[in-house]
Amino acid sequence: MKLTDSMLLRVNLSTHTVSEEPIDEKLIRQYLGGRGLGSKYFADEVDPMVDPLSPENKLIFACGLMTGSSAPTAGRYMVITKSPLTGTIACSNSGGVWGAVLRKTGYSMIIVEGKSDKPIYLLVYDNNVEFKDASRVWGKKTGETTDILLDEVGEKRARVACIGPAGENLSMIGCIINDKHRAPGRSGVGAVMGSKNLKAIVVKGSNTIDFKDKSAFTGAVKEKIDKIKQHPVTGEGLPALGTKVLDNIINQGGLYPTRNFQFATFDGTEEISGEALVKKGYLKKNTACFACPIGCARDVELPNGITMEGPEYETGWAFGAHCGVNDLHAICEANFLCNELGLDTISAGVTIGTAMELYEKGYIPKEDLEDGPELKFGNSESIVYWTNKMGRNEGRLGKLMAKGSWRMSEAYGHPELSMTVKKQELPAYDPRGVQGHGLQYATSNRGGCHVRGYMISPEVLGVPEKLDPQELKGKPQWVVIFQDLTAVIDSAGLCLFTSFALGLEDYTDLINASAGFELTPEEVLRIGTRIWNLERKFNLSAGVDPSQDTLPKRMFEPLPDGPQKGAVHQLSKLLPEYYELRGWSPDGLIPEKTLQELGLT
Amino acid sequence: MKLTDSMLLRVNLSTHTVSEEPIDEKLIRQYLGGRGLGSKYFADEVDPMVDPLSPENKLIFACGLMTGSSAPTAGRYMVITKSPLTGTIACSNSGGVWGAVLRKTGYSMIIVEGKSDKPIYLLVYDNNVEFKDASRVWGKKTGETTDILLDEVGEKRARVACIGPAGENLSMIGCIINDKHRAPGRSGVGAVMGSKNLKAIVVKGSNTIDFKDKSAFTGAVKEKIDKIKQHPVTGEGLPALGTKVLDNIINQGGLYPTRNFQFATFDGTEEISGEALVKKGYLKKNTACFACPIGCARDVELPNGITMEGPEYETGWAFGAHCGVNDLHAICEANFLCNELGLDTISAGVTIGTAMELYEKGYIPKEDLEDGPELKFGNSESIVYWTNKMGRNEGRLGKLMAKGSWRMSEAYGHPELSMTVKKQELPAYDPRGVQGHGLQYATSNRGGCHVRGYMISPEVLGVPEKLDPQELKGKPQWVVIFQDLTAVIDSAGLCLFTSFALGLEDYTDLINASAGFELTPEEVLRIGTRIWNLERKFNLSAGVDPSQDTLPKRMFEPLPDGPQKGAVHQLSKLLPEYYELRGWSPDGLIPEKTLQELGLT
Repeated sequence: MKLTDSMLLRVNLSTHTVSEEPIDEKLIRQYLGGRGLGSKYFADEVDPMVDPLSPENKLIFACGLMTGSSAPTAGRYMVITKSPLTGTIACSNSGGVWGAVLRKTGYSMIIVEGKSDKPIYLLVYDNNVEFKDASRVWGKKTGETTDILLDEVGEKRARVACIGPAGENLSMIGCIINDKHRAPGRSGVGAVMGSKNLKAIVVKGSNTIDFKDKSAFTGAVKEKIDKIKQHPVTGEGLPALGTKVLDNIINQGGLYPTRNFQFATFDGTEEISGEALVKKGYLKKNTACFACPIGCARDVELPNGITMEGPEYETGWAFGAHCGVNDLHAICEANFLCNELGLDTISAGVTIGTAMELYEKGYIPKEDLEDGPELKFGNSESIVYWTNKMGRNEGRLGKLMAKGSWRMSEAYGHPELSMTVKKQELPAYDPRGVQGHGLQYATSNRGGCHVRGYMISPEVLGVPEKLDPQELKGKPQWVVIFQDLTAVIDSAGLCLFTSFALGLEDYTDLINASAGFELTPEEVLRIGTRIWNLERKFNLSAGVDPSQDTLPKRMFEPLPDGPQKGAVHQLSKLLPEYYELRGWSPDGLIPEKTLQELGLT
Repeated sequence: MKLTDSMLLRVNLSTHTVSEEPIDEKLIRQYLGGRGLGSKYFADEVDPMVDPLSPENKLIFACGLMTGSSAPTAGRYMVITKSPLTGTIACSNSGGVWGAVLRKTGYSMIIVEGKSDKPIYLLVYDNNVEFKDASRVWGKKTGETTDILLDEVGEKRARVACIGPAGENLSMIGCIINDKHRAPGRSGVGAVMGSKNLKAIVVKGSNTIDFKDKSAFTGAVKEKIDKIKQHPVTGEGLPALGTKVLDNIINQGGLYPTRNFQFATFDGTEEISGEALVKKGYLKKNTACFACPIGCARDVELPNGITMEGPEYETGWAFGAHCGVNDLHAICEANFLCNELGLDTISAGVTIGTAMELYEKGYIPKEDLEDGPELKFGNSESIVYWTNKMGRNEGRLGKLMAKGSWRMSEAYGHPELSMTVKKQELPAYDPRGVQGHGLQYATSNRGGCHVRGYMISPEVLGVPEKLDPQELKGKPQWVVIFQDLTAVIDSAGLCLFTSFALGLEDYTDLINASAGFELTPEEVLRIGTRIWNLERKFNLSAGVDPSQDTLPKRMFEPLPDGPQKGAVHQLSKLLPEYYELRGWSPDGLIPEKTLQELGLT
């Protein structure tokens, strides 16, 4: 089967009916696959005003263009839906092996519609699909669910993507977990799956991918793998310490959010860094996702016997510095609980840190803690206890936490203490310390997010070139290009980490060689522009107006500490130029002309 | 297949050869099965002076007479070998389901001989056996090993008994774990399995058991189940709180060993009792072994996501009161680690408590802790950390701990601080507070042990009648009868807990009805006497002389606290009468005449 001979599987859970459709190659040329193609189908089929947790919302599982091939990191898949957390179109991206196996089933996309009347799971294999009773695993954690379903399916190469109790309970920060430790994590896609009574999708397949010109493809793959292996970040930094190589770098840069963004440096960084994970003996071995030459994943085992993957940089930060906690053991336990219960680690950790500030300021009354430990910054017992409550949707405060930081803060009358954009929790970089990255937070189509245009790369790591993080000039242009290129990388089915070593020309080579296209780099980048505007258009029609292209109030107050003390984010100086470069109106709307040029009318 | 048509499987790991032998019904009438029959074969075939960790030692897995039948609690199996810990004949007994499935394979006993040249596991099914490569699971913990082998075997009704890293590393307190949470725990039987490079035995079977007179058997079973359900201990106490119903009772009785038997009451008992397990929400549900109407097992889940069975009373005490620890969470974690690493929980907890006294008295130098937490009574971090080190045989102190309390204390020049009998750690009852139970400790054929004659039943619980724990008169006779009856219950394949509700006549009914015998109660009890003397004879020939029928020095010093303050154990007043009742010489040897009467010459 060629990558361009893609088939989509349409599954209606209300009627238990399925259908197959070929995917028009013209659409693949315009959107590649994954995020782009999935968003195109979603936007064409779903009313932007739909209630995200109603049967009318759809849930799309999509392989990227190269997913399942031997291209470096080509194991990615994406989940597209309307987010209950942000109200925007959501696309959450995950690694592991599940996505590659989905491609081998013969389907590159599954569109899930409607709602099952009882808990079920889907078994998808070699152009077949079965609806299976999930009552045995409903309520169970993701690890046990995965073991039980693999045993039930009885096929060693099968893979499971499932939700935990959080998704079942419609937690707005509930995620999907595949291969036990990998997650399409953000924006509450797990709650949408739960709202459909869909516990899991088990995939197994034996289809192979072939190529118009196999030697051209393998030649391109070999060349790009060499580049990845030779680059200091993807060839040394990430393989050595995983994403947690960043803790010390970001802390020293003075943009390591601490105690709910009240500070930008954390004195406990040493004890919770990637280096500490090795020193304490928690790290057992390095591991990697499907077809990945980088291998940033980590098999970890705690002294109490818990085995897990991670923690990743963002997770370690969210439960660590953000909560003022320097106890790596407790951080790992909270991470493990998030995976088992099916919670997004960034949103979960940030929500607990927010609760700590609300409690310390007296906005959360002591009685709301019920029997739980005090929500004080630095209390490591708290992060494990409250993650468990949140993930199980238990207790008054646990139920509020399960709605995410913004709704919890709003319930206590202080939404300004929620460090969110479009109600989604911000990741581990204080925007006051990186102007371009802050603009990217404010304009991200899925709310607070670091992987819609990772400006940390030039502004902190100096890749592809070093930019002054406080410089404003040129930043909007950088953000636009990074956002569009990221949309291309996602849609191609590759990991964003490849972009440390590869550029637009490299991706163009891989796309052309794999699909047999003859696109120019400009045409490839334009695909990204098209995807970005498609998402924006959906959001505007969904009532997420441009006034939400902003940052939490705190980001406009001076940084109190660290090398960038005194800095504020200067969004108002960046946003107009960003809109203009986007070809949008000064108030952030997309003119008909821009839509026409991109074929979005 | 009738219970009396038993077949034994002989497996030679050195030559990878197997053979089948029928078991003579005459032997079954003399030894029933399990402990009795296994010990008979063992004593006949193995030189008492054998090095327990050499290929010449044998390892016998044996079903009891009724194992696998519908008799109440008939899921027990026993492991018989020469113990590396005590140098005596060892018989460790376990519940769960594995033993019942072994019976269904068509074999009621497996005699493992020799040593494999590389790690293997045995797959035993329907009168077949396969030698399988275990390199994939060697070094892995018991939970993961069980999951991997069940997946490899691909048969849902298969069951796994395996060793963890402790057994592989020949820890003298290494156990075998079946069904993930159940253990033939004591005397280092896991080290013998490790010394043979045998990682696991996987059983699956479809044989059914039939009976000479099925209606007689089912009638007897129904009557005994009713008795068990109607008894306050087996019908209420154990089902309600499991074995941890005992914490408060034993503490209030003033025989709850605290801080390595320095005290007999523990002020933290409330926080670690069976009641606390419920109050803290760790207890998820009650569960039961094969064919058990009592259901004393407990499914537990900790707030950090660890799921396990237990802790049982002895385990909770060993890591709790014995170490001065009142942190139930840490106690559960240590229990979980013991199961995962394959350590006997009683010996592991007692060894850590002993190390705490050695450290506090300055006999263990600080540098021997290397990076580990201080071994101070009450330090909950220590019990988890050092269990992990011990189970993995890591570090100078971890390696010493893995040899058990006596050898560790001896290495530090203070064996008198090791609370052991015949080098095996004492369980959770201070003998100074229960004279009969103390005599039982001193005379147990496998060293310090509470399940060779559970005198706590009459001396504390008042079953079958209440005896004064400090009274000496009549106690030797009680001990002899309890020891012999226990040998019968074990060999019948039933759980010792049934003896709270059932008596000699009841067991006689079940044995006769199941096997089609017409034994009198006296003849049945005599079977127990025969087994006891067979074990004693082996031990004497193994160089374990009667001078070892004693207790730690501390037991002859007055109890410092509690309702029985001032009491000492009066072994010297009890032992001569015990020897006499046994028909042994005043110096504890077995006269030829006694051996002849029992058919042991």
